[in-house]
Amino acid sequence: MSSINKGDSLYLEDLHVGQEFVSRDHQLDAEQIITFASQYDPQPFHTDPQAAQNSFFKGLVASGWHTMAISMRLMVESIPFSGGVIGLGGEISWPRPTRPDDTLRVSAKITEIIPSKSKPDRGIVHLQSRTINHAGEVLQELTAKLVVFKRAQ
Amino acid sequence: MSSINKGDSLYLEDLHVGQEFVSRDHQLDAEQIITFASQYDPQPFHTDPQAAQNSFFKGLVASGWHTMAISMRLMVESIPFSGGVIGLGGEISWPRPTRPDDTLRVSAKITEIIPSKSKPDRGIVHLQSRTINHAGEVLQELTAKLVVFKRAQ
Repeated sequence: MSSINKGDSLYLEDLHVGQEFVSRDHQLDAEQIITFASQYDPQPFHTDPQAAQNSFFKGLVASGWHTMAISMRLMVESIPFSGGVIGLGGEISWPRPTRPDDTLRVSAKITEIIPSKSKPDRGIVHLQSRTINHAGEVLQELTAKLVVFKRAQ
Repeated sequence: MSSINKGDSLYLEDLHVGQEFVSRDHQLDAEQIITFASQYDPQPFHTDPQAAQNSFFKGLVASGWHTMAISMRLMVESIPFSGGVIGLGGEISWPRPTRPDDTLRVSAKITEIIPSKSKPDRGIVHLQSRTINHAGEVLQELTAKLVVFKRAQ
């Protein structure tokens, strides 16, 4: 697993609208899905492959928050903002469920950069990300508002 | 821990705007914060209490997605929808960071109920939830779109 290389850290001044970041792949499996869901989203379609067959989803699917958590890991590794990836909030949707044989990858793009008027050392960056599987199907869309810092003056 | 009691399951017909659900309390601690973040959001202010002191947050804070994951657990336990708590997406914000000594509780309220025209067996329910700590401070706000089923005809 890669970690953030501080030598490549990006500050607000280094960013532009349209800038893109692409993560590595993450291979999911049923065990990961069940482990996460047992702790955070204990519903049969996330924890019990047998029961999941008779559910709305017709098979085991990951908690949407698990898809999000994996996506966050992939973004933290691939987006080298100087102060880290610090979110204030965002909008999320899951166009289709994440399944055990999916390989996940995140592509993120800066859509807006708003320097702060009250706090001149930082700005708000809007980042639109998509989590796709190996077949190119979109599993998750997230538009996040992040705090990004300027270089110390 | 409580689990969903299927005898009390609620169908779309049982719901009304303004209906509220309140969870039990969940006591957080530094170990839980570090365990989650080490896997899903490995940034120093979530994983290293020492380094966190010198960060933007001035101390260890939970990943926002950890606050969300705990909130989901609390909602799954306290919202007995017949088919489960199935989200299509939503809007999330973290007005303040979650810290190791916080006790979390979720209050959720139905704000809209939209029967599906194309799929008469279900509807979309908008659920507005707040995750608060023991001091009553709001740590997270989430407005989620959920699929809720009607009784079989």
